[in-house]
Amino acid sequence: MRILVLGGDGYLGWPTALHLSARNHDVGVVDNFARRLYDCEMGVDSLVPIRQLQRRVTTWKEVSGHTVQPFIGDLTDEVFVEETIREFAPEAIVHFAEQRSAPYSMIDRKHAVYTQVNNVVGTLNLLYAIAEIDPSIHLVKLGTMGEYGTPNIDIEEGFIEITHKGRTDILPYPKQPGSFYHLSKVHDSHNIHFACRIWGLRSTDLNQGIVYGQETPETMLHRDLRTRFDYDGVFGTVLNRFAVQAAVGYPLTVYGKGGQTRGMLDIRDTLACVELACVNPPEPGEYRVFNQFTESFSVIDLAEWTAKIAGGDVTIDNVPDPRVEKEEHYYNAVATQLPALGLKPHFLEDATIEVLIETAKQHKDRVEFDAIRPTVNWRSTKSQVSVAKGAAGD
Amino acid sequence: MRILVLGGDGYLGWPTALHLSARNHDVGVVDNFARRLYDCEMGVDSLVPIRQLQRRVTTWKEVSGHTVQPFIGDLTDEVFVEETIREFAPEAIVHFAEQRSAPYSMIDRKHAVYTQVNNVVGTLNLLYAIAEIDPSIHLVKLGTMGEYGTPNIDIEEGFIEITHKGRTDILPYPKQPGSFYHLSKVHDSHNIHFACRIWGLRSTDLNQGIVYGQETPETMLHRDLRTRFDYDGVFGTVLNRFAVQAAVGYPLTVYGKGGQTRGMLDIRDTLACVELACVNPPEPGEYRVFNQFTESFSVIDLAEWTAKIAGGDVTIDNVPDPRVEKEEHYYNAVATQLPALGLKPHFLEDATIEVLIETAKQHKDRVEFDAIRPTVNWRSTKSQVSVAKGAAGD
Repeated sequence: MRILVLGGDGYLGWPTALHLSARNHDVGVVDNFARRLYDCEMGVDSLVPIRQLQRRVTTWKEVSGHTVQPFIGDLTDEVFVEETIREFAPEAIVHFAEQRSAPYSMIDRKHAVYTQVNNVVGTLNLLYAIAEIDPSIHLVKLGTMGEYGTPNIDIEEGFIEITHKGRTDILPYPKQPGSFYHLSKVHDSHNIHFACRIWGLRSTDLNQGIVYGQETPETMLHRDLRTRFDYDGVFGTVLNRFAVQAAVGYPLTVYGKGGQTRGMLDIRDTLACVELACVNPPEPGEYRVFNQFTESFSVIDLAEWTAKIAGGDVTIDNVPDPRVEKEEHYYNAVATQLPALGLKPHFLEDATIEVLIETAKQHKDRVEFDAIRPTVNWRSTKSQVSVAKGAAGD
Repeated sequence: MRILVLGGDGYLGWPTALHLSARNHDVGVVDNFARRLYDCEMGVDSLVPIRQLQRRVTTWKEVSGHTVQPFIGDLTDEVFVEETIREFAPEAIVHFAEQRSAPYSMIDRKHAVYTQVNNVVGTLNLLYAIAEIDPSIHLVKLGTMGEYGTPNIDIEEGFIEITHKGRTDILPYPKQPGSFYHLSKVHDSHNIHFACRIWGLRSTDLNQGIVYGQETPETMLHRDLRTRFDYDGVFGTVLNRFAVQAAVGYPLTVYGKGGQTRGMLDIRDTLACVELACVNPPEPGEYRVFNQFTESFSVIDLAEWTAKIAGGDVTIDNVPDPRVEKEEHYYNAVATQLPALGLKPHFLEDATIEVLIETAKQHKDRVEFDAIRPTVNWRSTKSQVSVAKGAAGD
């Protein structure tokens, strides 16, 4: 089918585009390169060198024979959004194109406002363009498990049946997101749900857990096809960051007690989930939510596992939690709809962590040590984040 | 106490400022006059002539001896927000300063984006300024009963205890808002709740019902002190609009069956509720929600009541519902916290409707008939709204 991948130059967007293209879908990718600009602002780089998008699609054509069509532009530019959708005429749009770092959104007022406006307006522009051009286009939107927070009851997939004072209804699951970034995804979810109700749009909201891993069958075909590997305190997610810390002999930084438990998944499962959502679209007017993760881990368990694999002198450093969150809590989240559609998970195993550490060791000369520690504190309204100790923004 | 009223030039903001000033609070008002600009865009005017803000505060000083300090500026301008809060040093901030019309937000993409960006960014700027300048400032935020939608269970005040699979938690009440405007208030609620959690701010979210009435004891003291009276299809709310329709012999436009039931309240009760919230602040870090209405009515009941009071030849016209909403539904909402603080409601009575109709008759020469009918259709992504049939926006 014809699938447009928004944010197709990013950590997950690029390998998703290759995964879909390799399976004979007609794929377009949209990006404004905002993610690369955040690197300039932070003074860091992907641990693994990545090529420009144009080189990536050229190499992919040479390696696979498949064409991936790039569209360069910004989703907050509604004219660009409309022109791109009209030209590519997708059957499904996979939407990765949002600022996706919780710490980045918590740097200061400017970054909070940027994150919410960028994410919410980009998605609003998409909803209007789909409604006007072709309401049958299926919007596959990347949400996050972080929208739910850590309630003291089981987390369901987007909706929950509530019986209250003798009456019953199925209602949107209550949300307690933990950053202005996570809040932006909650705002999106409400907006998309509404657009499905009033315009008959169809959408799948993929509430994704934390992704680990860096290589996929397609990105391994050529060095030009590699995707990003982030390890810094702002964009690096937990297991990938631990692997780099272990590789360079930096203590594994666990925030607080490390009892924070989160749903997680292998990068290869992200790609499979997105394709499963695309090829099994919801009915017109339907807004459905899939929880997209395969296992839950506490942060301390991941740190200990990484330390065991790395061996030797790797230590764990329980730093004060820069976030405002429960360091120990109940966590039991449902994720049955994607397995029901055929997902075969890659569960976390020693080899996964070994590959991450090995990759990190190959590129350890590229590590900016000052960027590893957490620099953004949730309790402060102004954090200093650049490795050069300069101000981020004004 | 020192109270800053944001949106203090508007329908409710201005009489609230007078109410608080008359009770010996030190009051400042902030406005960017966006509401007056919407009138220019729509080609309508307040049915009752209103004076400029500067004249209003001068007359109030002459009539009452009290000073109300005006601040002219925009909440999306963070420098203005910070400077105003530093200069006025409020103990409470009452926040009416948002685009508040559901139909306006549904005109087209541009108006939806404007509404969400204006409302969300203004409130984010406030939260940051309060956190940085004085976290003890109490943010009294105007939300809306429309955040809840029409669930098939009772509506509680902001939070609901849920027992699920043998475990229990108190969680934010699930939201099903019915327009991009109502969605903006849901976004605000989530953002404010989060700011209270991470920065220890204190806030009261007043989920207000539909307000009717136009005169208050203070606005009646001088003709310069009158507040707005909106009757048009975009900004006119239901009972006020019916009164004008009855006064000019226009059929009362009921959307669909008219079984839509909503919480409502007298304008005088709005002012009392806001003061009760201010003088009974929550604890630091507390985010509380009050449902602010006194009675529930169906639209058809209000139409029939208005027709009965108007007498004679007034008819009811069941036009196709321009909104996507249930025309008949269960509705039972709790509102006990404000009465517990001392609210003594003005329940709707014949005299209230008689005064509204009488006021409308006095100014019937100012009515733009073309502006009365509903022009914004929820199912369309582009509605024509100006009385001159021109395009709203580009």
